[in-house]
Amino acid sequence: MSLARVHNFAISLDGFGTGEGQSHDAHFGHAGDRLHQWMFATRAWQQTGGSRGVDNVFAEEFGPGIGAEIMGAGKWGHPGWHEDPEWKGAWGPNPPFHTPVFVLTHHPRPSIEMEGGTTFHFLDTSPAEALATARKAADGKDVRIGGGPTVIRDFLAAGLIDHMHIVVVPILLGRGVRLWDGLEGLEKDYAVEATSSPSGVTHVTFTRTGA
Amino acid sequence: MSLARVHNFAISLDGFGTGEGQSHDAHFGHAGDRLHQWMFATRAWQQTGGSRGVDNVFAEEFGPGIGAEIMGAGKWGHPGWHEDPEWKGAWGPNPPFHTPVFVLTHHPRPSIEMEGGTTFHFLDTSPAEALATARKAADGKDVRIGGGPTVIRDFLAAGLIDHMHIVVVPILLGRGVRLWDGLEGLEKDYAVEATSSPSGVTHVTFTRTGA
Repeated sequence: MSLARVHNFAISLDGFGTGEGQSHDAHFGHAGDRLHQWMFATRAWQQTGGSRGVDNVFAEEFGPGIGAEIMGAGKWGHPGWHEDPEWKGAWGPNPPFHTPVFVLTHHPRPSIEMEGGTTFHFLDTSPAEALATARKAADGKDVRIGGGPTVIRDFLAAGLIDHMHIVVVPILLGRGVRLWDGLEGLEKDYAVEATSSPSGVTHVTFTRTGA
Repeated sequence: MSLARVHNFAISLDGFGTGEGQSHDAHFGHAGDRLHQWMFATRAWQQTGGSRGVDNVFAEEFGPGIGAEIMGAGKWGHPGWHEDPEWKGAWGPNPPFHTPVFVLTHHPRPSIEMEGGTTFHFLDTSPAEALATARKAADGKDVRIGGGPTVIRDFLAAGLIDHMHIVVVPILLGRGVRLWDGLEGLEKDYAVEATSSPSGVTHVTFTRTGA
């Protein structure tokens, strides 16, 4: 069974998955890199060196078993990327996905093949249809729902997420895009666990009953 | 030095300190008792029996060293209590405070002496002035800022809280009164720790640098 999984998705204690004022030079707006410092410190991120504790073992779940990713237009590029025909995503020539990646956008363009196995495809469709398309491309493997917050919220609201790993970072961003809006009672369909880390973050996992 | 302390203040994962629709029969609105089940399970709450793990040791911090409490009108009574001259708070004849309690309200009334050392006083004043009054009554001891969410947020915004214990409960209430609104950057003035419990809640403590 091919699952839809969220990994390493960081929010502030007040629930923002990205800050305000996203731009070419500030992918997460005024949040800067504060939502992801826990991850940059891990061996999973650094490849050699880095921490090997609970933050790392969670971070390492990102890749295994994944055959495709779905992401939102706001993750793929800053506001206005669709006016730049040369834009190829924020990750350089060899993005860290190494699978087909489906970008949900009202401005689709031809697919872009990158180094390392990542190909960006562009879809203007619903979460359920995007997931069906990504599953086909994943060839039996799982599909990562990569964010940002609006995309994850839409997939949760549609009941499409099987497993979700959220990282609560102990900062108050005050403004930006909230993850949790409109999801009252979500916990009823999931087993929820919280694991705090010596780094200060708390890993919260939602695993769908039976998934 | 007399500190201003918050203890056992529970919020949902989406940041609500109380639900929607508070009434005489639903002190926390549609949240019911879901924000406080972790506490009801502790020895601190049950007196005999109950859990003695991390939830309990945090819960036990509620009383020691406290000489007065400040609470909001919404904690003392349901909406409309000021039209009921017989209302004496939601805790019966022997409330669990055992100190002077200052209720912040635009509808002050004469003080009410209860059993067990609790006396309710009513103040229509600012957080800073209320704290000065409560400190005098506390006679050198600390002052508990008892909630609800609006009162804690107002005291935080005024820079008046020295120590705060928040309990994040893994449910999504979706609506109600948020704790964190308008507190961007709060963490800069505090050492913040997170401790997850086998019960599923996460204890987050804010301790002011130097307090």
